[in-house]
Amino acid sequence: MINRSDVVTATRRIEGRVRKTPVIAVDLATLPSPTLAKRAATSTPPVVLKLEYLQHTGSFKARGAFNRILAAREAGQLRKTGVVTASGGNAGVAVAHVARSLVTRATVFVPLTAPRIKVDKLLSLGARVHRIGERYQDAYDAAAKHAVDSGALFCHAYDQPEVCAGQGTLAIELERQTEGLDTLLVAVGGGGLMAGVAAALEGRVQVIGVEPVSIPTLAESLAADRPVDVSVSGVCVDSLGATRIGDIAHHVAARAGVRSLLVGDGHIVEARRYLWHHFRIAVEYGAATALAPLLSGHYRPEPGERVAVVLCGANTDPADLVVHPALD
Amino acid sequence: MINRSDVVTATRRIEGRVRKTPVIAVDLATLPSPTLAKRAATSTPPVVLKLEYLQHTGSFKARGAFNRILAAREAGQLRKTGVVTASGGNAGVAVAHVARSLVTRATVFVPLTAPRIKVDKLLSLGARVHRIGERYQDAYDAAAKHAVDSGALFCHAYDQPEVCAGQGTLAIELERQTEGLDTLLVAVGGGGLMAGVAAALEGRVQVIGVEPVSIPTLAESLAADRPVDVSVSGVCVDSLGATRIGDIAHHVAARAGVRSLLVGDGHIVEARRYLWHHFRIAVEYGAATALAPLLSGHYRPEPGERVAVVLCGANTDPADLVVHPALD
Ligand SMILES: Cc1ncc(COP(=O)(O)O)c(C=O)c1O
Ligand SMILES: Cc1ncc(COP(=O)(O)O)c(C=O)c1O
Repeated sequence: MINRSDVVTATRRIEGRVRKTPVIAVDLATLPSPTLAKRAATSTPPVVLKLEYLQHTGSFKARGAFNRILAAREAGQLRKTGVVTASGGNAGVAVAHVARSLVTRATVFVPLTAPRIKVDKLLSLGARVHRIGERYQDAYDAAAKHAVDSGALFCHAYDQPEVCAGQGTLAIELERQTEGLDTLLVAVGGGGLMAGVAAALEGRVQVIGVEPVSIPTLAESLAADRPVDVSVSGVCVDSLGATRIGDIAHHVAARAGVRSLLVGDGHIVEARRYLWHHFRIAVEYGAATALAPLLSGHYRPEPGERVAVVLCGANTDPADLVVHPALD
Repeated sequence: MINRSDVVTATRRIEGRVRKTPVIAVDLATLPSPTLAKRAATSTPPVVLKLEYLQHTGSFKARGAFNRILAAREAGQLRKTGVVTASGGNAGVAVAHVARSLVTRATVFVPLTAPRIKVDKLLSLGARVHRIGERYQDAYDAAAKHAVDSGALFCHAYDQPEVCAGQGTLAIELERQTEGLDTLLVAVGGGGLMAGVAAALEGRVQVIGVEPVSIPTLAESLAADRPVDVSVSGVCVDSLGATRIGDIAHHVAARAGVRSLLVGDGHIVEARRYLWHHFRIAVEYGAATALAPLLSGHYRPEPGERVAVVLCGANTDPADLVVHPALD
């Protein structure tokens, strides 16, 4: 398991290697969005958006990857064979980026179904890419075997202590940027981000895990009191599409009292559009997920409650975000 | 003319009505962009990006419009007939936004050539829109006549003291966000933004006006020692396409020693793509203009020089910004 001191250690470890991402305080109440703002609870202080999509590689995943790989290097566990992971998404890109920046080798296993553009991105970052199997599990198994056979460091997408602690560094940064925070909304897939953030803020700030109705990994694990497999579908599959929450995430959530809030895909799509129309922020669906319950009214802050939202990734094709007549 | 105290007054006047836009410090030297970073002068501290495109209406223009209209209201000069401007671009949208937010009427004159989408945006903000004449000058003349006939407050896109002072408020905000700034790069069209910023920072920070080679309003006015008409073309016409710099901008630039730096459209296009690929920031060409000389090597900071760049607008169609393989 992890706790705040692991996150503080990670903060020191990755300092200077990740970007300090800015925040912006926004008053959702003043925005004349006919559908959204009226439904939102808005008698509250401005909501703080943590612009973590400005991070290297376009998502928070660079934090966890740096922490995992640097910790191994400090411990003398980083071999010539480098690092290995299984991910065609943001986690794979982050591991490839970190490996290149630390001048070690990255091997990434992806399923045969991984889109060409994602494979190209990994290759352009200098990773060796192996396409194998139909399902993510096949790529995962191959990566684990490669780690054992070659001595390469296995980097999990979400269920390793150093990975979770690394993601949590954004919460320590956020605490320094905003005073008196009460509540933090964060998207949940495998739960590495939520685990790190909840460990960092335990006893200080209420953390709420937001997930699509169609991928309820946290909700189901809390209900069953252990990680359980869920079926996975909808607009967020490429970022939040883990079939089961990580053990670390489950334990931290249960210990720290993290709640799950489920939102429908329609509200996620709306939240992503809203961020573009009112703020010219282009994020991916997984990131818009954390904002959705504030806009839809599924989360209504108490009067005076100070709420922050992590906008955690922007690896999106912005082609459907046009200059809409209704800006502001 | 205007000076720092006008900008300080404006800052107080518009407080709470505009967003405090964040900054991010970025190390261009570490970015492995083969074409750009190697050409750039990079033995310097991180460059500070002022994310002003997150402002209401998607550009800094909301600042000037709020200051102009609030100042008039304070002076008892705001009639029932409201405000009037001539602009199918960001200035028009800003005036419409401010008028709605202050519950007064906005009338906007645009040329017949204004695209339907821009007219729709003005209408959706509650403005009355009049389409008239082939050239911008026709719309401008009609707006000026309307102001005289109706008593509506005329809001210039760049050449009024309150407008320039309002734009300058972003520089005061920036000073509070970053320490020891040496140089600020800012795009120039009619020069309202540059004038406000230069007045605010006179004697404190070196301000450089960046403009497309194909719209050299500042360069030509400095050379001729008075505002002169220039021909106008290229990717930035919709934001930087004023045919002549404003009188206020010319005077402030001459007084404060603002230099003009000219960049080609190719480098502007490259800078806009670069911001998306490495930062997931989608801005319009006019905003990418200010960054272009740092990336192209047309501006090479001295060792230790602390440089900031204003990213001033994002009213862009992001459809051509795809997830490129070469992120980070
Ligand atoms: C943008 C984005 N948000 C959220 C997540 C979910 O993170 P976690 O699996 O740590 O819950 C991911 C995972 O890839 C992601 O890329
Ligand atoms: C995004 C953007 N940048 C820069 C400018 C130029 O401003 P100014 O005319 O004050 O020089 C404009 C003007 O419309 C703009 O919209």
